Amino acid sequence: MSNNWKKNFSATAHKTRPSPIRELLKVVGQPGMISFAGGMPAPEVFPIDQFAEGAELLKTNGTSLLQYGTTEGHVPLREFLAKWTAPRLGRQVELDEILLTSGSQQALDLFAWAMIDPGDMVVTEDPSYMAALTTFGNHGAEFASVRVDGEGMVISDLPPLIENLQKQGRKIKCVYTIVNFQNPAGATMSVERRKELAAIAERYGVTVFEDDPYGYVRFDGEHLPSIFSFDKAGNTLYAGSFSKILSPGVRVGWVSGAKEIVRQMVVFKQSLDLCSSPITQALTYEYCRKGYLDSHLPSIIANYRVKRDAMEKSFQKHLSPLGITWVKPEGGFFYWLNTGAIDSSELARRALEKKVAILPGAPFCINPEAGIHAARINYTYSKPDLIEEGVSRLAQAIEEMKISA
Amino acid sequence: MSNNWKKNFSATAHKTRPSPIRELLKVVGQPGMISFAGGMPAPEVFPIDQFAEGAELLKTNGTSLLQYGTTEGHVPLREFLAKWTAPRLGRQVELDEILLTSGSQQALDLFAWAMIDPGDMVVTEDPSYMAALTTFGNHGAEFASVRVDGEGMVISDLPPLIENLQKQGRKIKCVYTIVNFQNPAGATMSVERRKELAAIAERYGVTVFEDDPYGYVRFDGEHLPSIFSFDKAGNTLYAGSFSKILSPGVRVGWVSGAKEIVRQMVVFKQSLDLCSSPITQALTYEYCRKGYLDSHLPSIIANYRVKRDAMEKSFQKHLSPLGITWVKPEGGFFYWLNTGAIDSSELARRALEKKVAILPGAPFCINPEAGIHAARINYTYSKPDLIEEGVSRLAQAIEEMKISA
Repeated sequence: MSNNWKKNFSATAHKTRPSPIRELLKVVGQPGMISFAGGMPAPEVFPIDQFAEGAELLKTNGTSLLQYGTTEGHVPLREFLAKWTAPRLGRQVELDEILLTSGSQQALDLFAWAMIDPGDMVVTEDPSYMAALTTFGNHGAEFASVRVDGEGMVISDLPPLIENLQKQGRKIKCVYTIVNFQNPAGATMSVERRKELAAIAERYGVTVFEDDPYGYVRFDGEHLPSIFSFDKAGNTLYAGSFSKILSPGVRVGWVSGAKEIVRQMVVFKQSLDLCSSPITQALTYEYCRKGYLDSHLPSIIANYRVKRDAMEKSFQKHLSPLGITWVKPEGGFFYWLNTGAIDSSELARRALEKKVAILPGAPFCINPEAGIHAARINYTYSKPDLIEEGVSRLAQAIEEMKISA
Repeated sequence: MSNNWKKNFSATAHKTRPSPIRELLKVVGQPGMISFAGGMPAPEVFPIDQFAEGAELLKTNGTSLLQYGTTEGHVPLREFLAKWTAPRLGRQVELDEILLTSGSQQALDLFAWAMIDPGDMVVTEDPSYMAALTTFGNHGAEFASVRVDGEGMVISDLPPLIENLQKQGRKIKCVYTIVNFQNPAGATMSVERRKELAAIAERYGVTVFEDDPYGYVRFDGEHLPSIFSFDKAGNTLYAGSFSKILSPGVRVGWVSGAKEIVRQMVVFKQSLDLCSSPITQALTYEYCRKGYLDSHLPSIIANYRVKRDAMEKSFQKHLSPLGITWVKPEGGFFYWLNTGAIDSSELARRALEKKVAILPGAPFCINPEAGIHAARINYTYSKPDLIEEGVSRLAQAIEEMKISA
């Protein structure tokens, strides 16, 4: 076959790397494999019957569902979300302040199209969401990063970092943060820090991408107001998703923010995919309209709380004696293990031999060394008995590494 | 609100323009408006009941349909397409030679990610598909173009153009062509030219993007073999879509080509939207599996043939006397009018006042002057009586322009 493809590839194609998660998911289907690797919802929490009720729309509204939709997205769903997110956003956003996207992953790409020139800086938490780093990186972004502690991004590190970069003439286009149950670190940003970040954005003329796919999956404590709600200057774009509270298969996410940025993202969406599917948007709306989003969410949360607790118990039983440490997440999908002296890439490789899949920390980190002794563990996908078995296998892998060291 | 957005926008954001089609579609919903502007399928040809039959899958296969899908797309649908397109492609492609995309629009963006660095050249037909020019342009492509005549792209113009550009040190990444019932010119590339283009790609080490969203909507004559089928060296990527033969609302397109390019597009799709919706892919497959794609397609074609004939008749009645000329398309969605001395932008503006929407030629053209006296007219969306009424209004607008000139 042709040799013309690779020699004609773009520089970005030569540079970018396949997602280790998406690649690993292919192995994860093997018999006997226990997966803590992906960020997948549990199949047993899908509200299959309630969602399928909406299928009658395919007949009754077929004419509009099978046609092209507007690029901005299904109006009733945008209206619903404007109301539904109002408590979190501090106000009900207007219709032209909200855009539906093909999952919140597309929101990252659209935002990058609107904002990022090669060489521009994005400030992230370290560690951060791998596929956000890839997307921003594909657009030529360079990264500066701030530590994460038990209260989320260490905001006090931001002003000196920003001032230093601005002094060097670097353009800082945004601060990217996953505010609730951060992926992968599990931490949640405190209210005080949210206020500070909104103030810093205004003071330094930067924007904030507040990514919140996990925020509604809270096991303990109260929901916190968003950064968006403290940002009276309108510098914050808030991104949400149905992937973790209903279904990733609908591919419906959304962003809320100033008309200028939403409008510009719409223009780019025109040339990316014209519009998202009116079918899945309308089915999602039907589910929400009937009140199922609110009535079913508690059972998703309850399912994941049981699994989080099972994992906590298994960690205490199997990993505590081995000197592995972690912080218990109040919600979301992930634990972030501190593996001490253990190299997490090697651990992931050995764990896979024992048929348990985990993700090493390095790909999540701006400074890869920061991730060498960390690993991300998902607890939502596997059932509690498999969680216990998987952690036990993981402990065996760690013990063997300690012995051979 | 904030002034921080626009000042932080990317250079591409400052440069790109909203799609005139997508923008016009907002006006087109006005009462009494007759639209020849978009490229929308007729609502009455949607196989609503047959498509809705698949809805039971939401219950029976809910667990997998509501979950993340693979980035490559629903395996049974890829297998179906590999078989279904074999007569056109000259062989049955393998599973890793086919990728499902969120409409074929996304295929253009994925291809551009894989291939195009700023300043690279793309050779297109002039005129060409507007949103392809925008997408490639957003990635920094520059354009060289070749005329279109009754047999499609004038391939004999290609070798001197390519040699000249290569002599200047320009990197030509691909030849982009809409082979059948070209958008907007309506022309279909002859078999001889398809063979020549495949040979030229091999000789000069360039690739071909063979875009074929309209190819299965043929009214007269026989289907022609694809460029892909003549390209034994594997330099051609073939792109198809369900938008015109089933429904744009499913947002399912596909590309077939060498593993290298398909694989690289998959990697980019991971960071663009992770995967397309398993729901719409599975519903589309169910429709195909039951044989409905083949059994229903003739009635779509028949519907559009009647409308094409109605438009031809109305053109002869109203536009011929005014010196307007055109070529009758053998399939697809569009007429391309030569408006003679009439400025088509002004004509489109005046037509809109008379509640008929058409698209001026300039945005489709690499050399905008080439489009000043041309207009694209869609015939698939409006019913025959409205086609007659719309063309009559268009003729009135032309007459008024002639009088005032």
